[in-house]
Amino acid sequence: MKTEHIVLDEKMNVTLDAYIQGTAGEYRSITKRPAVIVIPGGGYMFCSDREADPVAFAYLSAGYDTFILRYSLNEDAVWPKPLQDYEMAYSYISEHAQEWNVNMDKIAVCGFSAGGHLAGAVATLAEHKPQAAILGYPVLAETVDEILKDAPYIYQKVDKDTAPCFLFGSRSDSVVHVNNLIKMQQALADNNITFEAHIYPFGPHGFSVGNDAIQGKGMAFCERIPHWVEDSIGFLQDVLGKFKSDQKPGEGNTGLEEPVCKQHVDDDGEAWLSVDCTIGRIFGNPKAVEKLDKHIKVMKEYVVPFSPEMSFDDMMDIMRMTKLKDLLMERQIPVDIKEINEILNTIPNI
Amino acid sequence: MKTEHIVLDEKMNVTLDAYIQGTAGEYRSITKRPAVIVIPGGGYMFCSDREADPVAFAYLSAGYDTFILRYSLNEDAVWPKPLQDYEMAYSYISEHAQEWNVNMDKIAVCGFSAGGHLAGAVATLAEHKPQAAILGYPVLAETVDEILKDAPYIYQKVDKDTAPCFLFGSRSDSVVHVNNLIKMQQALADNNITFEAHIYPFGPHGFSVGNDAIQGKGMAFCERIPHWVEDSIGFLQDVLGKFKSDQKPGEGNTGLEEPVCKQHVDDDGEAWLSVDCTIGRIFGNPKAVEKLDKHIKVMKEYVVPFSPEMSFDDMMDIMRMTKLKDLLMERQIPVDIKEINEILNTIPNI
Amino acid sequence: MKTEHIVLDEKMNVTLDAYIQGTAGEYRSITKRPAVIVIPGGGYMFCSDREADPVAFAYLSAGYDTFILRYSLNEDAVWPKPLQDYEMAYSYISEHAQEWNVNMDKIAVCGFSAGGHLAGAVATLAEHKPQAAILGYPVLAETVDEILKDAPYIYQKVDKDTAPCFLFGSRSDSVVHVNNLIKMQQALADNNITFEAHIYPFGPHGFSVGNDAIQGKGMAFCERIPHWVEDSIGFLQDVLGKFKSDQKPGEGNTGLEEPVCKQHVDDDGEAWLSVDCTIGRIFGNPKAVEKLDKHIKVMKEYVVPFSPEMSFDDMMDIMRMTKLKDLLMERQIPVDIKEINEILNTIPNI
Amino acid sequence: MKTEHIVLDEKMNVTLDAYIQGTAGEYRSITKRPAVIVIPGGGYMFCSDREADPVAFAYLSAGYDTFILRYSLNEDAVWPKPLQDYEMAYSYISEHAQEWNVNMDKIAVCGFSAGGHLAGAVATLAEHKPQAAILGYPVLAETVDEILKDAPYIYQKVDKDTAPCFLFGSRSDSVVHVNNLIKMQQALADNNITFEAHIYPFGPHGFSVGNDAIQGKGMAFCERIPHWVEDSIGFLQDVLGKFKSDQKPGEGNTGLEEPVCKQHVDDDGEAWLSVDCTIGRIFGNPKAVEKLDKHIKVMKEYVVPFSPEMSFDDMMDIMRMTKLKDLLMERQIPVDIKEINEILNTIPNI
Repeated sequence: MKTEHIVLDEKMNVTLDAYIQGTAGEYRSITKRPAVIVIPGGGYMFCSDREADPVAFAYLSAGYDTFILRYSLNEDAVWPKPLQDYEMAYSYISEHAQEWNVNMDKIAVCGFSAGGHLAGAVATLAEHKPQAAILGYPVLAETVDEILKDAPYIYQKVDKDTAPCFLFGSRSDSVVHVNNLIKMQQALADNNITFEAHIYPFGPHGFSVGNDAIQGKGMAFCERIPHWVEDSIGFLQDVLGKFKSDQKPGEGNTGLEEPVCKQHVDDDGEAWLSVDCTIGRIFGNPKAVEKLDKHIKVMKEYVVPFSPEMSFDDMMDIMRMTKLKDLLMERQIPVDIKEINEILNTIPNI
Repeated sequence: MKTEHIVLDEKMNVTLDAYIQGTAGEYRSITKRPAVIVIPGGGYMFCSDREADPVAFAYLSAGYDTFILRYSLNEDAVWPKPLQDYEMAYSYISEHAQEWNVNMDKIAVCGFSAGGHLAGAVATLAEHKPQAAILGYPVLAETVDEILKDAPYIYQKVDKDTAPCFLFGSRSDSVVHVNNLIKMQQALADNNITFEAHIYPFGPHGFSVGNDAIQGKGMAFCERIPHWVEDSIGFLQDVLGKFKSDQKPGEGNTGLEEPVCKQHVDDDGEAWLSVDCTIGRIFGNPKAVEKLDKHIKVMKEYVVPFSPEMSFDDMMDIMRMTKLKDLLMERQIPVDIKEINEILNTIPNI
Repeated sequence: MKTEHIVLDEKMNVTLDAYIQGTAGEYRSITKRPAVIVIPGGGYMFCSDREADPVAFAYLSAGYDTFILRYSLNEDAVWPKPLQDYEMAYSYISEHAQEWNVNMDKIAVCGFSAGGHLAGAVATLAEHKPQAAILGYPVLAETVDEILKDAPYIYQKVDKDTAPCFLFGSRSDSVVHVNNLIKMQQALADNNITFEAHIYPFGPHGFSVGNDAIQGKGMAFCERIPHWVEDSIGFLQDVLGKFKSDQKPGEGNTGLEEPVCKQHVDDDGEAWLSVDCTIGRIFGNPKAVEKLDKHIKVMKEYVVPFSPEMSFDDMMDIMRMTKLKDLLMERQIPVDIKEINEILNTIPNI
Repeated sequence: MKTEHIVLDEKMNVTLDAYIQGTAGEYRSITKRPAVIVIPGGGYMFCSDREADPVAFAYLSAGYDTFILRYSLNEDAVWPKPLQDYEMAYSYISEHAQEWNVNMDKIAVCGFSAGGHLAGAVATLAEHKPQAAILGYPVLAETVDEILKDAPYIYQKVDKDTAPCFLFGSRSDSVVHVNNLIKMQQALADNNITFEAHIYPFGPHGFSVGNDAIQGKGMAFCERIPHWVEDSIGFLQDVLGKFKSDQKPGEGNTGLEEPVCKQHVDDDGEAWLSVDCTIGRIFGNPKAVEKLDKHIKVMKEYVVPFSPEMSFDDMMDIMRMTKLKDLLMERQIPVDIKEINEILNTIPNI
């Protein structure tokens, strides 16, 4: 491992610690690595050590390069300075991406508490948005008023360009109320953004990775809390792609499989139709119905209605919120999904 | 295991299947067992087999007696008939509790989809409320209008008597939208009720226990989905109490430890103060401040303010949402928590 | 679930409890189920309840039909009576296989302690051998002399027809010494039989599934012990095949994938060569070398020797214990493995 | 994290990479850290990168300081030079223990393949033995002849001073045969040394931590293989002690709990008796029987014989291999175990 301590803003104590793993060689087709930028919490008053290295180790362990961003604090943290600190860090990493073999198309942030506010701002407002954001017991709503003036309520900034989010925290957190997590879920749902959420029934604020090297024994502490670490790695694999270390390096091959989960839950908001659009969207488009005539005939044969008196159109209406791809896969309808997708891609989504 | 098939309402095909485990003997102090009533889904049109036995097996495996309730469907399901079916089942179990060694103080329900609607109704509206409710991709909001007329929106029925809830589902569920889970979280948060929630980023409706004996391989299916089963067992252990099988049976001993997680997140809504009240509540009560004078002196010594210019009262104000017990435990303040609790229990919470 | 209590030998109290799950319908292509026959322990003096139902629940949960065999005890247990009890049970299941939809080609036994002795006898000596045996803190060696006269030392009976074994127990078991597990591993290794083994560093004899509904809290008990349950299910999936519930039922389709792990570690003991033979075996057969001439040329191109002075033949000599398939897959050599296998299948293994 | 690259022997390319975590402060009572020395494999011809950093990250993640030892190779590896390299590394760490806050009483080694041979040599033959050894698909038997002349067969060197061992590997490993693991288990069992063992049914040699950032997708690879990582951390917690991060630092307090598992399975080989001696050992010592007269009377009352015709002495004879402590705890006999231990500690074990 190569480590580097970078001072991004000397006056304001903004620093970046880089932990860079090896690539290629024994790592075969892993010629670049995806990376996680860890953003510790501390009420914009300090940067918690417990939310820095222990978190970085978990993602290093899973094969990611990791960076720890320590950002402007206290009187220096005048919004949007912390967000600018992130942009500086991003630029620095970007400039060294070739030297370090970092895959700039696969960047995640992981922030806690106030650092979760900053990571949330990065996911929604940054110029260089990451491809995923992990937000631990984060300040995402009005709670921010207690720690930083003029900082945005993150949940209000969510739009269709927001990064997929992994949310977690404790139901009984008395420092950052669970409402922060609930409002964020609602905003992500309203904007068609992929998310995962784990809310544990009890446990204190600030548990970090929650293993016994971190967590005091005295507190009531739900045994499932440490699961978020492995779960978040699973989430990164879903939205960034898993490693496929056996393949030989080749042009354009960066050692990652295609992600199984996209930024948007469906493609109804895209410019062109696709099999990831809902049935309602596709069947409501006359051109699509016309061009898929042959395939719809097969579907009529294979989609068994819930009851005898139901017509095929009734069924499609009931399933209007289902993605076409899901219907075809689940019912194992013998059509060529790829071919259908190519046809749909030629039809404007209007 | 003893099994029994009970017809609760022959005309309406309401049945209860009982799977009853042994007690005492080699099971030592387990002289009664807590139980889970499984309520399969199926749009109030059928009761899914996949959400019956496979679910029961998981809870049997964890030491619970289990029951499968098949309730009124289709034209028979005129609300509140399904809820009455539950009450009938509860009464039947209650009448046989002594014979079967079921612990009626430790009952959970576990429902899916439409069965999640019924289980949610049980958790909020039943005469005989369970001590915990597990709700899988449940219909809890306006979605119910699509499947049953005049049925309640469960999230609107949540109040301070609602059972602690374990919620799970898929973000991309196109049959029962994730909003059902989000609205329920908000209602539980607003009413001070304990809950746990797991929302997986993608996966189809109706995945049941999600193992390979259930789940079709064709569908996009998040690998973390099956985790809800073990997590829900952990939740039951938290809110009902873990087995303590080594103790000798004794008076009042039913083989369960004290639960580590209560129905309410804090005791601010109770008639008398306790260490589970928030600091704000306790310090805002002059009688409490007076009676705890001695202990507060110790706290002043041990609670280090975040910054030098902060007073003890400033600190207490910042931490006003924290439960007193949590503060004392986390800071390891050398006072007798039990003694403090006893003092607080004598002071009306006004 | 269908349950049945079958008396196999009334005089000797030999019974079989059948727990039979549903098939087809919502379970799609699962038209038959593999099954586990659970054999509780108790020193051939009793049959432990804790090693009966709780074990059955775990395998039911994983999708298997389960049976609990209670066999001849005490003065009735004159060897080989208990083994005959198994044969009786097997025959009974076999006769009802069609009615119950049990897949008789996919039977496992799971025995504990003395029941592990009987399950071990079944795996090595039975007329109707199962396809897998799970042996928990089993009596497999001279320990049996303390509990049953004239019973075989199982490890001495292992041969090339022995079923693949999953072994587990506690290093500090003072009732059945860990040597029983070590000798069995050696015998399985010597006879080319697949096995998996988990030995936990401390914990008492007789822990069964080891969850908190079973295990007394007083004892020193390694936290990893309960893992054997999930691990053994993984083992069954490896050697029997995973469920593939999405496929449509078809001729010969019983809803299971091809197993990824075979009974023998390599095919060097088979009558005909295959890609599962070792490199040494194949390259030592002149006919094989001749017929694979074309493919060996490709291998020469792609197998990079460990050092420049090494020849291809040196490399093949070093790797003589490696299976040809493993070499081809790991080095990603661009040859058609299936084609090579078909060629090898025509060559006698002499 | 502090990192340091130390050249221990420039001529022979022996190096030590130190990854040192923070202590105290937010880590509270963790004022020192236990450490793991990672020893990569590579047939004494190279040191594998895949068995260096990825392994270190796992133990860093669990709270341990980690070191990577790259030792003498090829013609430099004349035995016992690699073992001397370890001693050099140990001395270096020891000299910097105070600066780095490393707990020298809690050192583990973790070696793979040839590195497993070296780690095994460290566990059995080193002057400065570690408190635990993790040995992955290790060369411990005659296999070593193929890679290094005159190197010891580790299993033959096991004695009562050998460190507790955690063993793992693949049953189908064709490079280092499973016999290496079986012989080592036998040697450890014969010498009363604690061990844990996990043998997976199939998988290639050299899988390292086995996650998807390491493991090629092409090979047959048992899904349970990666479990060894978490299991080995559990083993370290058992034999070194868990972190107890909430306690205030105090004299002699290094932030670790008492280990729950000792080096020896029982104390029968110690100079003085203890409750960790077997019943046979204690009841065979007349002085012990005399001094425990009062306690034995209680035991007679509480230990129920297996059958009515059995005497208490018969029972004690049957349980002669059981540790006294285990009997007292499991049967919950109302005696003061600590008091009994103190009495036994005054009696020579002859």
